[in-house]
Amino acid sequence: MLVNGECREHIEISDRGFQYGDGLFETIAVVNGQPVFFDRHIDRLKAGCRRLYIPFPGAELLAFEAQKLSEHSSNAVLKLILTRGSGGRGYRQPDVIQTTRVLSLHPFPDYPVLYKEQGIVTRFCDTRLGLNPALAGIKHLNRLEQILARAEWTDPAIQEGIMLDINGHVIEGTMTNLFYVKNHTLYTSLLSFAGVAGIIRSILMTMSYDQGISAIEHAFTQDALLSADEVFVCNSIVGIWPVRQIEKTHFPVGEITRQLQIGLAHFQNEATSGGL
Amino acid sequence: MLVNGECREHIEISDRGFQYGDGLFETIAVVNGQPVFFDRHIDRLKAGCRRLYIPFPGAELLAFEAQKLSEHSSNAVLKLILTRGSGGRGYRQPDVIQTTRVLSLHPFPDYPVLYKEQGIVTRFCDTRLGLNPALAGIKHLNRLEQILARAEWTDPAIQEGIMLDINGHVIEGTMTNLFYVKNHTLYTSLLSFAGVAGIIRSILMTMSYDQGISAIEHAFTQDALLSADEVFVCNSIVGIWPVRQIEKTHFPVGEITRQLQIGLAHFQNEATSGGL
Repeated sequence: MLVNGECREHIEISDRGFQYGDGLFETIAVVNGQPVFFDRHIDRLKAGCRRLYIPFPGAELLAFEAQKLSEHSSNAVLKLILTRGSGGRGYRQPDVIQTTRVLSLHPFPDYPVLYKEQGIVTRFCDTRLGLNPALAGIKHLNRLEQILARAEWTDPAIQEGIMLDINGHVIEGTMTNLFYVKNHTLYTSLLSFAGVAGIIRSILMTMSYDQGISAIEHAFTQDALLSADEVFVCNSIVGIWPVRQIEKTHFPVGEITRQLQIGLAHFQNEATSGGL
Repeated sequence: MLVNGECREHIEISDRGFQYGDGLFETIAVVNGQPVFFDRHIDRLKAGCRRLYIPFPGAELLAFEAQKLSEHSSNAVLKLILTRGSGGRGYRQPDVIQTTRVLSLHPFPDYPVLYKEQGIVTRFCDTRLGLNPALAGIKHLNRLEQILARAEWTDPAIQEGIMLDINGHVIEGTMTNLFYVKNHTLYTSLLSFAGVAGIIRSILMTMSYDQGISAIEHAFTQDALLSADEVFVCNSIVGIWPVRQIEKTHFPVGEITRQLQIGLAHFQNEATSGGL
């Protein structure tokens, strides 16, 4: 682990990341020693810093440290946390903010390849996502909603929980974004009031357009989702997982899901071979 | 500072308090070496643990550690943080949770006595509180909304910001609960969807009842607040601060506010002289 460039495993108690969840993070796949879609993660981090008024430490510095941690790993997960650092009285931020940066490398989770090939089983979570446009879309450190949702089940046969907002709109998985296909059109949730704007989500929106598939962000209910032709979830670590079951409703692994899986794999290969 | 009973100033990076804001806290006034309303803070912490499924470490242990830190301070602030500890993959909590407890002592903030006597100046914040019944009322570590709200102003003439929820209902101050008086009745916000259920707030609800003043929790707008006879904010550190100004609207420091200030001071004296 690297804390502000030094090998350390601890953080000051006074750090606002610990005191208030006052920060942001990125979870990045590392393949053959290279962080995948690194520039996109850095762009999102920078955008998050702008929205939370946290000084951004600079892409070059983060790239240098990420490289240092990742270069000897064939397969890993790189986690990058930025916080508003220490200081300030109460919620008030300090006059001079010294952003804390924490980079850590973790083993790549050993998800069975079956998940990608044959799809996963999901459930609807009882825990609802709150509504807040000020924080929507940002991958910030206030993640109690996801933790409560993930604590709802322990059955290892269920791989992901689908979260609704308090108005009953489907938003995302606890750790993934969610898409569905209906009549050859791709749909995903609006993230104006809740949810995380995922990197893979944004890649897939562009990619589907390039492949001639209309992709629409809109508000939709459980019923709309359950009558879909195909459903899948995605994030930077798992890529695309088809959803073969939501509670008692079954779905085939459909053509568009397969097409996007293949497209994403190509795109990722190009990216990690220096193309992006 | 005490981390799990040991003098330390650092916390593991893997602690879920740092990773996700996965925890709770209490801010407790210390007067003459004694944490004020300690049992009430512990009760709220216990209730928060129940709602977040964090194992509660036991009131005796926390009391022992709080005493150890506080006993030589005439005037201080004791902060008590509990987190879900380290471990678990992603949002999923570990199978065995080892609650982390962090107690720290801070100087009592040097607020001018004028705030208590003549009242404070406040403003409405642009940052809105999101709605989420699963987290409403709890003093948890996900505090980005308050941080964004508090970052809206630096003018030292303004002592507190008043926050509305995304539906336009007035909820609380960035670090205080809010009450207003209209026609001899006391009103405060419902905290079913947003806000922190403060210790002083709950004491005042009971106290006003005992003093023959009706106290009503309800949903109200900016307009209702601006047409109030008296307004005040409260928390465990400042007690009661009359609000003498919200933006351009002025308020007198009214009778009921004074009555509750006196009542709270008596109640606190009894509590710290061993009565509670």
